[in-house]
Amino acid sequence: MKLVRYGAPGVEKPGMIDAGGTLRDLSQHVSDVAGATLSDAGIAALRALDPASLPQVAGNPRLGPCVAAIGKMLCIGLNYSDHAAEAGMKIPEHPILFMKANSAIVGPDDDVILPRGSTETDWEIELGVVIGTAAKYVTKETALDHVAGYCIVNDVSERQFQTRLSGQWTKGKSCDTFGPTGPWLVTRDEVPDPQSLTMRLDVNGTRRQTGSTATMIFTVAEIIAHLSQLFTLHPGDIISTGTPPGVGMGMKPPLFLKPGDVMELEIDRLGRQRQVVRQDA
Amino acid sequence: MKLVRYGAPGVEKPGMIDAGGTLRDLSQHVSDVAGATLSDAGIAALRALDPASLPQVAGNPRLGPCVAAIGKMLCIGLNYSDHAAEAGMKIPEHPILFMKANSAIVGPDDDVILPRGSTETDWEIELGVVIGTAAKYVTKETALDHVAGYCIVNDVSERQFQTRLSGQWTKGKSCDTFGPTGPWLVTRDEVPDPQSLTMRLDVNGTRRQTGSTATMIFTVAEIIAHLSQLFTLHPGDIISTGTPPGVGMGMKPPLFLKPGDVMELEIDRLGRQRQVVRQDA
Repeated sequence: MKLVRYGAPGVEKPGMIDAGGTLRDLSQHVSDVAGATLSDAGIAALRALDPASLPQVAGNPRLGPCVAAIGKMLCIGLNYSDHAAEAGMKIPEHPILFMKANSAIVGPDDDVILPRGSTETDWEIELGVVIGTAAKYVTKETALDHVAGYCIVNDVSERQFQTRLSGQWTKGKSCDTFGPTGPWLVTRDEVPDPQSLTMRLDVNGTRRQTGSTATMIFTVAEIIAHLSQLFTLHPGDIISTGTPPGVGMGMKPPLFLKPGDVMELEIDRLGRQRQVVRQDA
Repeated sequence: MKLVRYGAPGVEKPGMIDAGGTLRDLSQHVSDVAGATLSDAGIAALRALDPASLPQVAGNPRLGPCVAAIGKMLCIGLNYSDHAAEAGMKIPEHPILFMKANSAIVGPDDDVILPRGSTETDWEIELGVVIGTAAKYVTKETALDHVAGYCIVNDVSERQFQTRLSGQWTKGKSCDTFGPTGPWLVTRDEVPDPQSLTMRLDVNGTRRQTGSTATMIFTVAEIIAHLSQLFTLHPGDIISTGTPPGVGMGMKPPLFLKPGDVMELEIDRLGRQRQVVRQDA
């Protein structure tokens, strides 16, 4: 099942994409794609609906982030061995964790806005993991039971802010619009193996990133198990699991985003994102 | 004005402490201490009420975090020059930023729970700054206009998780219960100079931290101005502005929290916190 949120920013409604690709409204059944709706029971209740009975949504509305009321956006750094090499960093012993501010999260096709002073804004296609039920002290064997589903995250990153403003990556990861999330929350039954998804990112039609979740250093299950030793993962939390090679800072010479650039991202089964880059006023 | 949230976790009601120290209910006037209630207009509307007309709250209820719907908990590291020296770190060129997960935030007197495997959990008394109106690209001259008020934050920190689990401090800062916040949101009119507040923290009755916000490296106004260049600060965001000397990891030999320990924190004008330390099962 593909769950979405559609409409203007801040007033999105819940919906689903049916087997024919039609957007249908879920407002009569759930208040939003959030909280208890993400539990196994909540998803089962939606799956029990006859999609043909749901109102079709007219037109081609904007999509918002595919999850509402996100508690925390947890990001894993350097989780693909070849990206770590590209960034000149050694393979980490444990998953590297930083956080992206919730205020950075936008819809999958919303503009990405370069903040004033930005000179090194970069792209990072990532597999996003949406937590469905609370996880604390879980093992990797049962970790995936706590997943509601998966989505694409573009972990947009300002490299100067990330590395040259005195430590900790959050600064370069949390600029407004730096977290396109969606288009769909694809429930986990439709992603039987999260470690076999190919992913690709184009800038202005040129392929920049190509990868597969098969080359993650820490698997989704291992990441969930590790983080759950530290704190509770709650329904609606998202874990963005790191990016494969091909980011702009790894190119020789480095290449960064400029106004008018177009990013297109795709992960198997999870759909596509497309963002236009703009300069903040 | 001293705003509070009282009641059981997750179902707190808004309230205020009147001039005589009595807790009075605000439920008939605002839904919570959050969002638009934190704006200048929202606070002025509450100030216009006659406290004597508000229902007294019976008994001595638990206090929750003094702000609801916190968007992001932004923490500044090494912001007191003598604490930086104690930690063996050089004075940063810009405010060091990391984030504490919202799921770590608890009430001012709630238990602090040592997670499994914790051996180095430490205390950090900090001045919390609650944003009242959105701030983007603001200058330090106008930064404080965006502040709703101030509160105490205990930035509890697991030093092993923070420093020895592969980079980025978030891991050691985000454990469940590691963010006691409150007791009160003291509106900024009652804190004319946030850079002249003395602060103190006792463990089991022994004074461990003594400091003053006068020795911050970056002032509250400078921090707000800096962060607002990176992203929007929204109403209900909290900035925890760093800790003065006296943390356990700086002692010789280092001293860390153990089950049964009692932390008591106080900042001028902002009240007191008291937490009992427990071991997670």
